[in-house]
Amino acid sequence: MPLFDNSNEDPTVKDQISFLNNELGKLQREAIQLKIPIVILFEGVDGAGKGALINRLLLSLDPRNFKVHAMHSPNEEALYRPFLWRFWIKTPKQDQMTIFDRSWYRHLIDDRVEELLEAQGLPDIFEDINNFERQLADDGVLIIKLYLSISMEEQRSRFEKLEKSATTAWRVTQKDWLHHAQYDNYQKMVSDMIEKTNSEMAPWHIIDSSSIKSATIKLLEWVSNKITKAIEEKKLEEKPVFTSELQWRSHAKKDSPLDPVDLSQSLELDDYQKRMNILQEKVYNLEHLLYLSRRPMVLVFEGWDAAGKGGAIRRLVKGLDPRGYEVIPVGAPNADELNHHYLWRFWNSFPKGGHIAIYDRSWYGRVMVERLEGFCTEKEWKAAYQEINEMESHWAKCGTIILKFWIHIDQDEQLARFNAREENPLKRWKITEEDWRNREKWDDYKIAVEDMIQLTDEMDAPWVVVEGNNKRFARVKVLETTVKAIESVLC
Amino acid sequence: MPLFDNSNEDPTVKDQISFLNNELGKLQREAIQLKIPIVILFEGVDGAGKGALINRLLLSLDPRNFKVHAMHSPNEEALYRPFLWRFWIKTPKQDQMTIFDRSWYRHLIDDRVEELLEAQGLPDIFEDINNFERQLADDGVLIIKLYLSISMEEQRSRFEKLEKSATTAWRVTQKDWLHHAQYDNYQKMVSDMIEKTNSEMAPWHIIDSSSIKSATIKLLEWVSNKITKAIEEKKLEEKPVFTSELQWRSHAKKDSPLDPVDLSQSLELDDYQKRMNILQEKVYNLEHLLYLSRRPMVLVFEGWDAAGKGGAIRRLVKGLDPRGYEVIPVGAPNADELNHHYLWRFWNSFPKGGHIAIYDRSWYGRVMVERLEGFCTEKEWKAAYQEINEMESHWAKCGTIILKFWIHIDQDEQLARFNAREENPLKRWKITEEDWRNREKWDDYKIAVEDMIQLTDEMDAPWVVVEGNNKRFARVKVLETTVKAIESVLC
Repeated sequence: MPLFDNSNEDPTVKDQISFLNNELGKLQREAIQLKIPIVILFEGVDGAGKGALINRLLLSLDPRNFKVHAMHSPNEEALYRPFLWRFWIKTPKQDQMTIFDRSWYRHLIDDRVEELLEAQGLPDIFEDINNFERQLADDGVLIIKLYLSISMEEQRSRFEKLEKSATTAWRVTQKDWLHHAQYDNYQKMVSDMIEKTNSEMAPWHIIDSSSIKSATIKLLEWVSNKITKAIEEKKLEEKPVFTSELQWRSHAKKDSPLDPVDLSQSLELDDYQKRMNILQEKVYNLEHLLYLSRRPMVLVFEGWDAAGKGGAIRRLVKGLDPRGYEVIPVGAPNADELNHHYLWRFWNSFPKGGHIAIYDRSWYGRVMVERLEGFCTEKEWKAAYQEINEMESHWAKCGTIILKFWIHIDQDEQLARFNAREENPLKRWKITEEDWRNREKWDDYKIAVEDMIQLTDEMDAPWVVVEGNNKRFARVKVLETTVKAIESVLC
Repeated sequence: MPLFDNSNEDPTVKDQISFLNNELGKLQREAIQLKIPIVILFEGVDGAGKGALINRLLLSLDPRNFKVHAMHSPNEEALYRPFLWRFWIKTPKQDQMTIFDRSWYRHLIDDRVEELLEAQGLPDIFEDINNFERQLADDGVLIIKLYLSISMEEQRSRFEKLEKSATTAWRVTQKDWLHHAQYDNYQKMVSDMIEKTNSEMAPWHIIDSSSIKSATIKLLEWVSNKITKAIEEKKLEEKPVFTSELQWRSHAKKDSPLDPVDLSQSLELDDYQKRMNILQEKVYNLEHLLYLSRRPMVLVFEGWDAAGKGGAIRRLVKGLDPRGYEVIPVGAPNADELNHHYLWRFWNSFPKGGHIAIYDRSWYGRVMVERLEGFCTEKEWKAAYQEINEMESHWAKCGTIILKFWIHIDQDEQLARFNAREENPLKRWKITEEDWRNREKWDDYKIAVEDMIQLTDEMDAPWVVVEGNNKRFARVKVLETTVKAIESVLC
């Protein structure tokens, strides 16, 4: 027998729910048209009726535009990646509603009650979660966080009811009873969590779900109100922006990270081959060590057009086992990517622990080409420095080894390479009108590069400027830096 | 030390490889422009050098357009789905090359050697694999199947070399030595497999990889030749079609599955509510049983516009736990889906064992709207009956419970519902110009429906025609049929 029998519903309650269902359906269609993505998450003690209430919510909605994710304990794919990964990749498109049955808060309740979480890690987790929600909210996502509450007595009686039926008895696990015995402790964790993550952009709402009927009404009303408000804000374009521009400072710093670079450095062929052979053997062995360590590695390659990113990547991976790395070339976003937060696609390609992701161009496009070509607003690219730092910092905290290369050449060298490419029939396809156009904006790009390096060079995700006029020198430096980075962590 | 040291390569061999690399790069770019998707799979005994050779291949290619998948033993996501699922969802887009390091053949070698596969299941697996490859080939995919071969002695010496180094010793597992001890048996399985799956559309090619250098050359040459040939065929539009139209027969059968349907059947409100309550409780319990059985369930809803598919689905899921089912509304394919085989998107939403996927419209669009509106060629929709039967048959063999509903109404009833919708402000959005246009083609659609039901009504994936003029009758019949289908399998 279902937990919540609805065969004998009071007709007025039924009418009220039916009215709210219609209202919510209408609001959903309006939100879709206005491209308001929506995240609704359900937390609550075991047996609070999350499943039943989610189903009541779904009955109002057009199934083409929602998706329910039951977030169980993380599986292997998720365990070997940063904690927020499995949630980021499920964030909604602009015309979608994503409903999380349990969420990133699971970690902060169950894992704390079960003492799987070390206390000193908590402030970081609260910070990362608040950052995550703030980033989504700034991208226009409406976040609705619901906590379903029942008393200890009600919880016991529901468990017992489930256990009485042969088909549902298995749903009540030992863990559920364990949590039940720790009901007060559980409540304490929940209060702490709600206090620390109850923000303007993503406030908590607690629903007493002792009675399914009144909980349904409260749920539908709350969600309708929130969507109505979001629609009004969107129409007036009054949505507040939560990311400060504090991290943005003028590029007019004294020390340019590019000017002092000595581009005259080079390597002779003999020396190059000798060092390359040693380094390729080293990196081959380190790839295996990395695999055993289960730590993910992220390598970012940025640089001027024709700086030699592709060539450097090729020499780096030449000796590697293709099962252990992936080269991810980053171009203009496709339609699906454009419909998500700009960082979404990079979360999607994040490597599993033990693997290396090599980005040929990256999320730094936001503060380079998107900034200079006006593909995003000034507010957006100024906020991006902080957003990117937060993302990389979360990755690093979760064990990721991060290195970012800027392959640097000067204008003369670029011109020579452009000309050489145009003369070589095998390489002509590599050079486009756009490359020539970008070249004319060299000075603007230089300012953007300097800002980027100065504002996102972090201890756990450093920039390495590579002297690129001499390809051999650059390739050896890339390989050497990578080898050292792995060694310093693993050896 | 890498398995294949390349520090002292013979300069003429180096030149030859470099020439082939350039050639292959050029061919890849041409294949991309012509939209030829490519699948390359590598099989071979342990230690044959798959990783090293794949890396040699990758060095020729533009990383924007290939993707390597190392197919390890299936994880939980794959184990709880039909065997071909994890390969289907990774098939390439029109401008992509997908490289499988191990493939669907893993099952036919390793699992046979380890005696995990029962002999009586083999013919089905061979059949399903051949069907899979034929379906891809008919969609224009170039399939290159490579088997790397080394002698038993060479295998032993390579294992010993790997074991000598601390960083690579872990790569040689007990299983590898077990396979080594069974080298002859392994070869027997391989010969049998190659013989049974060596088809015109997807032939095997065996490469002796005792020497990495000559294997590299042979690999690059073979792949280049195959792509060259595919390019020529594509330009001449000479690509052969492998699916016969045998399963297609004229609709002019004597017995229409629609004409005898008694649309006058109905249910009184009292009776309806009583039966609904009983059925919803049953289906709630069965959902749990299904979950415990780990069998996937696929429910397809097709029917005339306004036949009541949505309403029937709503009543079906009303009492269910949303963690156990998903409603998948199927509309026009998006850009990504259009770039894949038309069945690809349905493989992607296939439910995990224990879960129910409810398709609101489905792959049958191929033989309905796509057939009638000319969205695919006559050859294509005529081949679809067989392709769909093969897909559903594979799912059923792998334990899936499949039910397909055609919700039937007559033209008068449809007109009444269209008018009612237009008069109701809450439902007006549901009716579009297209609905009125489709209505004018009623007779054509009827022929297509009859063909569809007659040609794809299979024992393990039956069609159920639902009398839909009376909504209450239809909803009860859907629920009742679903309950019976689960009960007949699980109870």
